[in-house]
Amino acid sequence: MDQIQSISFIGSGNVATHLALALKEAGLHINEIYSQSHENARALAQKTGGKAIHTIEELDPLIDLYVISIPDGAIKHVMQNFPPVQGIVVHTSGITLMNVLEKLPLFGVLYPLQTFSKQRKPEMSSVPFCIEASSKEILLKLKKVASMLSSSVFEINSDQRQYLHLAAVMVNNYSNYLFRMAFDILETKGIDHTLLMPLIDETISKIKSLHPAVAQTGPARRKDTETIEKHLQLLEEHQDYKELYKIFAQQLTKKYNEQL
Amino acid sequence: MDQIQSISFIGSGNVATHLALALKEAGLHINEIYSQSHENARALAQKTGGKAIHTIEELDPLIDLYVISIPDGAIKHVMQNFPPVQGIVVHTSGITLMNVLEKLPLFGVLYPLQTFSKQRKPEMSSVPFCIEASSKEILLKLKKVASMLSSSVFEINSDQRQYLHLAAVMVNNYSNYLFRMAFDILETKGIDHTLLMPLIDETISKIKSLHPAVAQTGPARRKDTETIEKHLQLLEEHQDYKELYKIFAQQLTKKYNEQL
Repeated sequence: MDQIQSISFIGSGNVATHLALALKEAGLHINEIYSQSHENARALAQKTGGKAIHTIEELDPLIDLYVISIPDGAIKHVMQNFPPVQGIVVHTSGITLMNVLEKLPLFGVLYPLQTFSKQRKPEMSSVPFCIEASSKEILLKLKKVASMLSSSVFEINSDQRQYLHLAAVMVNNYSNYLFRMAFDILETKGIDHTLLMPLIDETISKIKSLHPAVAQTGPARRKDTETIEKHLQLLEEHQDYKELYKIFAQQLTKKYNEQL
Repeated sequence: MDQIQSISFIGSGNVATHLALALKEAGLHINEIYSQSHENARALAQKTGGKAIHTIEELDPLIDLYVISIPDGAIKHVMQNFPPVQGIVVHTSGITLMNVLEKLPLFGVLYPLQTFSKQRKPEMSSVPFCIEASSKEILLKLKKVASMLSSSVFEINSDQRQYLHLAAVMVNNYSNYLFRMAFDILETKGIDHTLLMPLIDETISKIKSLHPAVAQTGPARRKDTETIEKHLQLLEEHQDYKELYKIFAQQLTKKYNEQL
């Protein structure tokens, strides 16, 4: 097998869009784009010089690499109609096992560990690419493609990748929700939430030199139940945030004080 | 009243230490340091050129500013033995109301909205200082002192400050705990947690241009119950983390899908 040169996409969402653009910028050829939303497929085709197709059966079977980048739940469904292609087929999902693709001759996974929004161009060169493949030869080819996009490429198996995806949800989705909670609370009181930005920046800087288990500070760590009670009172108008606050306080108090 | 030139400290913890060092660097005179731990008081006195004293009653009554920087619960207790000083007395607490100091003639609050650890020197010039005072004259003096340390000085009343403190606990203490959870989960599986750092960095960069309510992504936002179920299975060995994950997933799913 030769080096990967032509790529088709199944999907046209945030990940597909940023990956396709980066691959095109890296000099690869974007061939066909299939998406449930033909309008989105056309938009991405226009940006990448590819061709939007209407059904998955139309996929040219002689392309080097097919990238399936669609919601996790839809991958199995797409596999039912996937044509008998000869190139490598990968998905980009964190939580989906590689063997969902096993009815195909050549397959693998190319999981970019990052949050993508259409509104923001990601710094692709620092995105960790987690790759897995059905053979060593395919692994090398995927490594080569990933290395054209990023300096951070790792061989990660399906089991490890699931835990990475779980951890990613915690550090991104759930910390983002905490930021939203904090911003909401301040906005309710007419306080500018940008006051919190230096603290948020320092929170992140800190864990680059101190493990978060050591960097931990605050009322729950020092078992300051009086402050925790006051905070819970302030949250009376936000019962959902109060519920979440309570569990954090309980777990932290327990973790840092149970041996005292 | 003239400008503040001499300062005494009650307390020798993380906040007291970094504040005293910064004030000394700004050219102010650190006078006395009182702390429950005389050893800590001596250590801070040595670093700042101040003098460690054994009891709070020994405080020189003619100092310009007294900074009480001790655990929240201890402030009321310290006030019971506080000598009749003529200078301004402030505390540095986020959650404690200013009027806890009202038996003194001149008082206020100097709350640095930041997380301090002894192991790390903070970037004091960007720390938001939230100030409040018992008179306009004192407010101006505190503003002047705070401005010697930071370019970010705000007048914040006791009620607003409590909400800021609550928000700070969420964005610092609780997001730090999420990072710890994620790191723990990866470490259990022998996966290097530094793989998450580009994602954590992007999570923070993103909310500088997009409100977190808009920046939100992930399985719960798109009501991907299959992925959430898989994650909960992966958390079987971490029942506490599982409990917290569940509540985040429930709240996010509800917030983003209840109108659909």
